[in-house]
Amino acid sequence: MADTPGAAPDQRVVRSKARVLEETYRLLFEGGIGGVSVDEVARRSGVAKTTIYRHWPTRSALVLDACSKMGGPEPSPDTGSLREDLTILAQRVADQLRDAAWPSVLPSIIDAAERDPAIAGMHERLHAANMQPFLDAIAAAHRRGELPAERDAAALVAEVVGPLFYRRWFSKEPIDPAFVTGVVIHALD
Amino acid sequence: MADTPGAAPDQRVVRSKARVLEETYRLLFEGGIGGVSVDEVARRSGVAKTTIYRHWPTRSALVLDACSKMGGPEPSPDTGSLREDLTILAQRVADQLRDAAWPSVLPSIIDAAERDPAIAGMHERLHAANMQPFLDAIAAAHRRGELPAERDAAALVAEVVGPLFYRRWFSKEPIDPAFVTGVVIHALD
Repeated sequence: MADTPGAAPDQRVVRSKARVLEETYRLLFEGGIGGVSVDEVARRSGVAKTTIYRHWPTRSALVLDACSKMGGPEPSPDTGSLREDLTILAQRVADQLRDAAWPSVLPSIIDAAERDPAIAGMHERLHAANMQPFLDAIAAAHRRGELPAERDAAALVAEVVGPLFYRRWFSKEPIDPAFVTGVVIHALD
Repeated sequence: MADTPGAAPDQRVVRSKARVLEETYRLLFEGGIGGVSVDEVARRSGVAKTTIYRHWPTRSALVLDACSKMGGPEPSPDTGSLREDLTILAQRVADQLRDAAWPSVLPSIIDAAERDPAIAGMHERLHAANMQPFLDAIAAAHRRGELPAERDAAALVAEVVGPLFYRRWFSKEPIDPAFVTGVVIHALD
């Protein structure tokens, strides 16, 4: 029973789709993309495989849909100071890297993206959405004349966010507030 | 036929171990850690599974052995200028991120490390070895008095290497020489 455009969605369909996505998330967080199978999603959610395949024609489509709802951007700060805006945004990323579930899933997405163009496209869109608040803050500073026009926005984002990601996935060192503050100061000086 | 300590290794054993590692590498580069199976290594190398298991008791042991030989540190530069040393080292990393095979395998190692302590330990050792030339260059600058004693070496490494890794695996933007030079200048200023 496919959804009819314009018609109110059947509440049972809404609920079973939500259950399927919830169990897909849970499997993602337990074992990365490699840990998601439609068999296991069906078993845990109690939704029949035929129903799952009616809404998501392939395992990849289901994984993409679940991943695309991870994280999500938050509003941009606007303190009038680029250093303060970037420190707030960088600290928010640092908090998520320490506490949220998605940082343990992201390496499996990046691994799959090396070989799967659909996953690579999804990763690119997610990443761009998550970095937008940084670009907004930098654009505002450019407009205020607080940052020289020749200072490249994308390079500045890499210099602020790169060291945080590096500590979470590569060096595994603590991402404490002193480190976050120092990263922003050095990138701006 | 296990290797006897002190005895000259049997040349056939040396050759078949090398063939097994070579095919393991190849599978790693094609599909990440998830792409390596002992069955497929045996098929491609022509070495019997029983022989493979004699040298590497588990699939994980074989993967660890192959991964631990990836990359490998190169000699530290010693130009007498920290900015020059770091630029040489950062440019070397940038070249590898663009051209070498290991950057496409590393996400699968980092993904596996999220859940497998043996892989996490191997990743930690490999990472530490690869970052050592950066720490050596910074220690020399500290000794020369070129860098203030209070400037933390680990944070400086994160600020130089983090933005390069960020572009390779997250933003997928070019890691060109102008970007590399800018990253080093901002981290040091």
